Amino acid sequence: MSSNTSLPMDRLDVALGERSYPIHIGAGLLSSPEHLVAHLAGRQVMIVTNDVVAPLYLPALKETLNARDFDVREVILPDGEPTKTLASVERIWDALLAAGFNRRCTLIALGGGVIGDMAGFAAASYQRGVAFVQVPTTLLAQVDSSVGGKTGVNHPRGKNMIGAFWQPKAVIVDTDTLATLPARELSAGLAEVIKYGLIRDAAFLDWLEANMTALRALDGGAIRHAILRSCEIKAEVVAEDETEQGVRATLNLGHTFGHAIEAHQGYGNWLHGEAVGAGTMMAVRLSADRGWLSEADVERVAGVLEAAALPTVAPANMSAADFLERMRLDKKNLDDRVRLILLESLGQACIRDDTPADQLDRLLRDFSRR
Amino acid sequence: MSSNTSLPMDRLDVALGERSYPIHIGAGLLSSPEHLVAHLAGRQVMIVTNDVVAPLYLPALKETLNARDFDVREVILPDGEPTKTLASVERIWDALLAAGFNRRCTLIALGGGVIGDMAGFAAASYQRGVAFVQVPTTLLAQVDSSVGGKTGVNHPRGKNMIGAFWQPKAVIVDTDTLATLPARELSAGLAEVIKYGLIRDAAFLDWLEANMTALRALDGGAIRHAILRSCEIKAEVVAEDETEQGVRATLNLGHTFGHAIEAHQGYGNWLHGEAVGAGTMMAVRLSADRGWLSEADVERVAGVLEAAALPTVAPANMSAADFLERMRLDKKNLDDRVRLILLESLGQACIRDDTPADQLDRLLRDFSRR
Repeated sequence: MSSNTSLPMDRLDVALGERSYPIHIGAGLLSSPEHLVAHLAGRQVMIVTNDVVAPLYLPALKETLNARDFDVREVILPDGEPTKTLASVERIWDALLAAGFNRRCTLIALGGGVIGDMAGFAAASYQRGVAFVQVPTTLLAQVDSSVGGKTGVNHPRGKNMIGAFWQPKAVIVDTDTLATLPARELSAGLAEVIKYGLIRDAAFLDWLEANMTALRALDGGAIRHAILRSCEIKAEVVAEDETEQGVRATLNLGHTFGHAIEAHQGYGNWLHGEAVGAGTMMAVRLSADRGWLSEADVERVAGVLEAAALPTVAPANMSAADFLERMRLDKKNLDDRVRLILLESLGQACIRDDTPADQLDRLLRDFSRR
Repeated sequence: MSSNTSLPMDRLDVALGERSYPIHIGAGLLSSPEHLVAHLAGRQVMIVTNDVVAPLYLPALKETLNARDFDVREVILPDGEPTKTLASVERIWDALLAAGFNRRCTLIALGGGVIGDMAGFAAASYQRGVAFVQVPTTLLAQVDSSVGGKTGVNHPRGKNMIGAFWQPKAVIVDTDTLATLPARELSAGLAEVIKYGLIRDAAFLDWLEANMTALRALDGGAIRHAILRSCEIKAEVVAEDETEQGVRATLNLGHTFGHAIEAHQGYGNWLHGEAVGAGTMMAVRLSADRGWLSEADVERVAGVLEAAALPTVAPANMSAADFLERMRLDKKNLDDRVRLILLESLGQACIRDDTPADQLDRLLRDFSRR
């Protein structure tokens, strides 16, 4: 296989001092693995992937790495959010130990957000921390979960309750992998892309409204720009606040409601991005109720979410009480107050724990009635 | 209960930038909990302890904290190294989630090294990291495992294979707790105290030879000095090299052999400190074989270990092959070379991966024959 370093590629950096790392974005990066290889710590490489992604990309990647004399092993987990458990991470640890891998091994997360979160937590906790590289193959992972070092697994009592902040050594985004992504998962990724516009960049929101058709058709230029701008915003926020003491929480616009939906419906029945779409609509409605957004703003957000084929209402079978029960354990909450990410305007998020209880109640009842 | 802040107390700091923390050492600190309370992040407190320590110290500690309006919960695990598993850490996570504790909760590790390692890893991984305070009640934990942020659990394939570097907010050493410690566990702690002299402070080794009787009799002044000097050395080394890229590995003198002994005998049958005692003797013998120590030095080390009532020979049922098999997975190894901590002189450690295979073989056979 010939390498091709002249492919058009974007590069940006997540600036975290000695934990800084690059994000490479381009078409065909998986078949031109220089960027990946440069970040492998030693000769021992464990690829963590799932049974949907493995047939598509694993054989070629293994062959490339074997040809360069790496000792390559693999763990193939079932696809989907229900796999995101401690038991799966134990399978990764067991494989590392069975292979006799030491502290200089590298894990490669080849897959979507679930694989990245699990491989990242496995790396964070194996021998007190080894290297890992993110190779995200879904839009959601490419624009969001692969960047920023949040790793972990779900617990029966809540999403992402067990995990660590553990930064990758690099993120390698091959946009060609989106060609095999189901349309529903593409939409789920677009929910996070839209989020970046809403919380921090009104001009990007304008651009998304104008380019949603091109994005859903996987137009190469549009996709690259959407991923690049999303990663830029995420990298900025993470560099400001790595461990979410403040502004990083704004990346969770719609997620408090969204996590409640995911947990109530059973992980995997609503995709994360779909739940975030509905949750974003709820946060936007609440922001309007508080007087910060106009009805026209609300309609704009509904319009762009619908253009991305995302849900804008909560599941029909979910009551206000169902929401409240699930929201109580949200990681953003401190000292019994519900913290929510809201919008002061389109393009400007805020973190508020002063939502009047009756206003929240009315919102939840309204959304459960729809 | 009246507080008494005029108790004689030593304080030193582990200098790790924004992760710096104090170590408080004194008699009676548990019944005078100002130092502990100052480091609790919010109102939610989870005490992690074991079924031997709980009856001795838990009721008073809970009462003190309850009286100050903390929401105090507890997890009581079985005593001993066999408890140091992922399943125990899951019990802690489950208790935190059942209590609805958020990111501002604090875990208190009340017990020996096993409790500290597990509570620390539970804290490192709960909601991607919450605060914890070490309250070590064994000499070994007071001089070694509670300081420096190494946390984790054992895996059937090796000791401490799963874990994290996660620094406590404070270490509170109440030397009164040693009064209830079995003599065998006191000796185990002395193995680590002796280690500090061997790797970094020949004068401290002299002092230990002169004061071993006082230490074993729990003489207050001697105990405080031994703990203080041990913590000072540990804090220096950790501040230089938090994540063991270099010099921190010297703290593992005797541990590569010791871990092999523990794993082979079944965790808990040989105490960690006992295995380190025998392992130290092996490292010292090898250092002499390499020409760096004299036979008189070897005899001195044997003498001080024996004065501390520690074993200086390996278990009778362990073969050279048993050692090699267990040593292969040691975390210090890189790229298939066995890395060992040896002594260039008494008081000066070095990290070497160039031990000739035949010399190592002879050492293991000599020690298995004894």
